[in-house]
Amino acid sequence: MPRFLLCAGPKPRRWAACRYNGRRVTESILSANSTYSLAELAERFGLTCHGNAEIRLDGVGTLAGAGPSQLSFLSNSKYTAQLTGTRAGVVVLRAEDLADCPVAALVAHDPYVAYAKIAALFERLPAAPPGIHPSAVVAAGAQVSASASIGPCCVIGDGAVIGDGAILGPHCIIGEHCTVGAQSRLVARVTLVTNVTLGKRVLVHPGAVIGSDGFGLAFDRDHWIKLPQLGGVRVGDDCEIGANTTIDRGALDDTVLEEDVRLDNQIQIAHNVHIGAHTAMAGCAAVAGSAKIGRYCMIGGNAGVLGHLELADRVTITAKSLVTHSIREPGEYSSGVPLQENRQWRKNAARFKHLDEYVRRLSALEKDSNNE
Amino acid sequence: MPRFLLCAGPKPRRWAACRYNGRRVTESILSANSTYSLAELAERFGLTCHGNAEIRLDGVGTLAGAGPSQLSFLSNSKYTAQLTGTRAGVVVLRAEDLADCPVAALVAHDPYVAYAKIAALFERLPAAPPGIHPSAVVAAGAQVSASASIGPCCVIGDGAVIGDGAILGPHCIIGEHCTVGAQSRLVARVTLVTNVTLGKRVLVHPGAVIGSDGFGLAFDRDHWIKLPQLGGVRVGDDCEIGANTTIDRGALDDTVLEEDVRLDNQIQIAHNVHIGAHTAMAGCAAVAGSAKIGRYCMIGGNAGVLGHLELADRVTITAKSLVTHSIREPGEYSSGVPLQENRQWRKNAARFKHLDEYVRRLSALEKDSNNE
Amino acid sequence: MPRFLLCAGPKPRRWAACRYNGRRVTESILSANSTYSLAELAERFGLTCHGNAEIRLDGVGTLAGAGPSQLSFLSNSKYTAQLTGTRAGVVVLRAEDLADCPVAALVAHDPYVAYAKIAALFERLPAAPPGIHPSAVVAAGAQVSASASIGPCCVIGDGAVIGDGAILGPHCIIGEHCTVGAQSRLVARVTLVTNVTLGKRVLVHPGAVIGSDGFGLAFDRDHWIKLPQLGGVRVGDDCEIGANTTIDRGALDDTVLEEDVRLDNQIQIAHNVHIGAHTAMAGCAAVAGSAKIGRYCMIGGNAGVLGHLELADRVTITAKSLVTHSIREPGEYSSGVPLQENRQWRKNAARFKHLDEYVRRLSALEKDSNNE
Repeated sequence: MPRFLLCAGPKPRRWAACRYNGRRVTESILSANSTYSLAELAERFGLTCHGNAEIRLDGVGTLAGAGPSQLSFLSNSKYTAQLTGTRAGVVVLRAEDLADCPVAALVAHDPYVAYAKIAALFERLPAAPPGIHPSAVVAAGAQVSASASIGPCCVIGDGAVIGDGAILGPHCIIGEHCTVGAQSRLVARVTLVTNVTLGKRVLVHPGAVIGSDGFGLAFDRDHWIKLPQLGGVRVGDDCEIGANTTIDRGALDDTVLEEDVRLDNQIQIAHNVHIGAHTAMAGCAAVAGSAKIGRYCMIGGNAGVLGHLELADRVTITAKSLVTHSIREPGEYSSGVPLQENRQWRKNAARFKHLDEYVRRLSALEKDSNNE
Repeated sequence: MPRFLLCAGPKPRRWAACRYNGRRVTESILSANSTYSLAELAERFGLTCHGNAEIRLDGVGTLAGAGPSQLSFLSNSKYTAQLTGTRAGVVVLRAEDLADCPVAALVAHDPYVAYAKIAALFERLPAAPPGIHPSAVVAAGAQVSASASIGPCCVIGDGAVIGDGAILGPHCIIGEHCTVGAQSRLVARVTLVTNVTLGKRVLVHPGAVIGSDGFGLAFDRDHWIKLPQLGGVRVGDDCEIGANTTIDRGALDDTVLEEDVRLDNQIQIAHNVHIGAHTAMAGCAAVAGSAKIGRYCMIGGNAGVLGHLELADRVTITAKSLVTHSIREPGEYSSGVPLQENRQWRKNAARFKHLDEYVRRLSALEKDSNNE
Repeated sequence: MPRFLLCAGPKPRRWAACRYNGRRVTESILSANSTYSLAELAERFGLTCHGNAEIRLDGVGTLAGAGPSQLSFLSNSKYTAQLTGTRAGVVVLRAEDLADCPVAALVAHDPYVAYAKIAALFERLPAAPPGIHPSAVVAAGAQVSASASIGPCCVIGDGAVIGDGAILGPHCIIGEHCTVGAQSRLVARVTLVTNVTLGKRVLVHPGAVIGSDGFGLAFDRDHWIKLPQLGGVRVGDDCEIGANTTIDRGALDDTVLEEDVRLDNQIQIAHNVHIGAHTAMAGCAAVAGSAKIGRYCMIGGNAGVLGHLELADRVTITAKSLVTHSIREPGEYSSGVPLQENRQWRKNAARFKHLDEYVRRLSALEKDSNNE
C-alpha cells in the first residue's frame, strides 16, 4: 500500500491542462528576481554539469511544463517518458538517465534532494520587513527582537519572547510565556496559547493551534471535572507544523517535538505526547495522550496512535491504520481492509461479523477429518 | 451503508424538543423582512399550487415545527406521518402525497430542490455594506472593487484582487497575488495564503485555509529538506468550502477545484489534487497529493484517497473508506468492517490476524475431501 | 482496546527527561501566587490527612517530578513503583497505598478526582481585565456585560449578548444574535457564526467554529443547490469545546449540546445533531447530520457516527470505529481490524476480499462431511 499523503510529489501535467479561466497562474510566481547559471548551480551544490554551462535559469517547473529558462528534475522512472520531450533548460537527473536527456543536465546521486535545494533559490516569500505593524498589540512585558517582523493584528502577551529574524504573519497570537525561536516563521493566523517554546527555523502554517488545553477529565459521580492543564509544548529546531494542526500542552510535564519533526495539516497531537527527531506525519494523523513516537518514524495520513503507547525508531504506519499496541521493532505496520465495489464488499463485511464462528467450524471439520 | 455526512437533511423534531432554556431560538431568524404569497411562489418556481393561493408566508420550518405563516416540505416518505398533523401554512410535496396534506400545497417533481430554492428567499445574511472597514489593513498594491465589502481586521496583501460584490467577513486574510471572484463570500476568518484564485460566487466558511504549503519533503541522508511549494490553488465558480477545511497550493502546477465542487468541514486537500466539477465531499474526508477525482463524485465522511490515484466520474466512496487504487468505473465503493458489540468484535478481529492461515487450512481440507 | 484519546492521563516522566535546551519550562507555571497547607486542603475537599499537616504547597507535579513544596497523586496502580521514590511534599492516594508512601498524604476515595480539584487551585490563567480592548470592534446593537473581558481584535455583531464575567481572548468573532453565557471563556480566536447560544461556564479553545452552515445540498439535474441553513446552535452549561472543532448550525431546528458535553480537538458535529448531557468525545471524532447521541456516552478518537442514527445513553464507541446503525443498549462497540506487520497484514487483507466465497466453501465442505 502506498503511503498516504506522505511525500506525494508533484505529478507533472501539461501546461495546457494548467490553463484555467485563460490565465497561467503559476508563471509569474516562478520567475524570481535572480537568475543562476548552470555552472553556478553545479558548483554550489556539488553536481556534475552537462551541456552549455552558461545557460541562465530563472525558475523551476515540471518536465512537461518547464520552459527554456527553467530547471526541472527526473527522480521517478515513471516519468522517464516525459524527459525526451521536455523543453526545460536544464534537468536534474541520475547518471543513468543522462543519455535520454535532450537538454542540458545536472547529474545528482539523489535528484529529488538536489532539486529541492535548487528550487529553494527560486522561492519568493511575502515581504516581511523588520518591526511591529501598527495594528499589532504587544504587551509591555513581551520581548521582541528588533530584527523580527510582526504582522498586522498580531497579539503578543506578557513574558513572550520573539527571536531574531522571526517572522509573524498577520493575525498570529502569541500567548503569555511563549517563545518563538530565531528565524522561525509563523505564516499567518497561528496561535500559541501559553507556555509554548518554538526552536529555531520552525515553520508553522495558518490555523495551527499549539499549547491549548489537553483533554483531561475526571468523572466525579455524575459529571465531568476538568484536570487543569499546566504543562507546555516544546518544539525543536527545524520542525514544520501544518495548517489547522493542533498540539496540546502537557497536563504537568510538556508535550515535546524533537528537532526536524514534520507535521502535515490537520494533525492532532494530544497532551504529553513525545515525538522523536526527524519523524514525519501525513495529514489528519492523530496521536493520543502520552504516546511516545520514536525517531525517523513515518505516520501515514489519518493514522492513529492510542494513548501511552511507545513506537520504536524507524516505524512506518500506513494510512488510516490504528496503532493499538506498542511497537518494539522498526518496520512497516498496517490495519484496515481493502476497498471493493460496494455490493461485493457488503457480502464480505457481513461475513466478518461471524469470523470466529467460521474458524470454529473449520477446526471442527479438521478434527472430523483427522478422526476419519 | 448510508452515506456518511452526505446530504444529511434535517430530521424534523417537535417544537417542544427545540425549546432550551425557555427560548425558541430559531424563531426570530425564520421571520424575514419580506413575505410571499403562495401564488407568487408557484409562479416564480413553476410549481402547481393547491389551496388558498393568497396565503402569505414569512418563513420556513419542519413539518412538525412550522406554523401557519411558514412553508414546509415532504421529500422523504419516512416523514409522511408528520404530514397529516402539520400546522404549516403550505407544504411542498409530490403529487402522490397531495391527498394526505391537510393544508395548502405546492406540487413539485423534486420537493427537496423546490424547497431549497424557496427557502433561499427567507435566508437573512449579516449586513455587509460595500467599503473597507477602518480596522482592515489593505496593501497599496491590492485592488478592491468599490462594491466589495471588507470586514473588520481583514488583511489584504499586494497584488490581491477582490471582485465586484465580494463579501469578506471579519478577520479574512488575503495573501499576495490572490483573487476573490465577484459575488464570492468569505464568511469570516478565511485565509488565502498566496497565489489562490477563487471563481465567482464561491462560499468559504470560517477557519478554512487555502493555499498553504503542500507537504513536500525529501530525505537527505539523515534529515528532511523541504521542497519549496511554488504553485497555487484555483477554485472554480460556485464552489463551497467548509469550516476549517485546508487546501494546499501545488508544488509546481496548481491544485484545482473545478466549478460547483462542494467540500464540507475539516476536509484536507493536498497539493496538486484535481477535483472535477460537481463533486461533493463530506466532513473530514482527505485526498492525498496529485490524486485526480472525477466529476459528480461523492466522497463520504472521513474517507481517504491515496496520492496519485485517479477516480472516474460518478464514483461514490462510502464513509471512512480508504481508496488504495485507481477506480475506472462509476459506482459505489467501500472498505471497513461492521460495528459490533465489543466482546463479539474482539473475537472476530483476533481471527482476522490469521485469516490467510485459515484459508490455507480450508484449501487443504478441500484437497483432502476431493482425494477421498 | 483502550479508549483512544479518552482521558489519557499524564504518564509521569522523570524531570531529567523534561529538560530541553537546558530549561525547565513548566516550573514557573506550577508556582502559583498562593500556597495552601495540607490541613487546609484536607478540610476544603473532605479528605483525610496523614503526616505533617502544616506543610505548605505551592504547586502540583508528577510523582517523579514534584518537589517538596508540590502535591502529586497516585490513581493508577501502574505507577505504584514511583510512589516509593517520590520527592513530592504530599501525595493524594487511596487508603491501600498509604503504607507505601514515603511522604505526607491525603487519602481519597477517588484520588484522580481529588487531585483534579486541588490542582485547579494552582492554575494560573492569563489576566483578563473587565472591559473592551480598544482594538475590538463591537456593534452598536451588541450587549456586553460590564464585568466581561473582551480581548484585542474581537469583533462582536449586532444583537450579540456577552454575559457577566465572560472572557473573550484575542481575535474572537461573535456573530449576530449570538449569546455567550456568564463566566464562559473563549480562550482565543473562537468564531460563533450566527444564532449560537452558549450556556454558563462554557470553555471554548482556539480555532473552534460554532454555527457555520451545515452541509445541505440538493441535486438539481446537473448541479448542486444549497439548502439555506437557518437554525442555530445551543450549547449547554459547563460544556468544553476543543481547538479547531466545528459545530454546524441546524438546517431548520437547532444543533444541540446539552450540559457538560466535552468535545476534544478537531471534532466535527454536523447540523441538527443532538448530544446528551455528560457525553465526552475524543479528538477527531465526527457525527453526521441529525444523529442523536445519548447521555454519558464516550466516543473514541476519530470514531464516526452516520447521519440520523440514535445512540442510547452510556454507549461507548472505541477509537476509529464507524457507527452504521442505531444502538439501543448501553455498552461498548467497535469496528476495525488489528494492526499487524505490513507483510502479514497484506496477506490477510487480500483474503478479506473473498471472505464470502471462503464461507461458502466451508459450508459446502460441511455438507459433504455430513453426507458421508
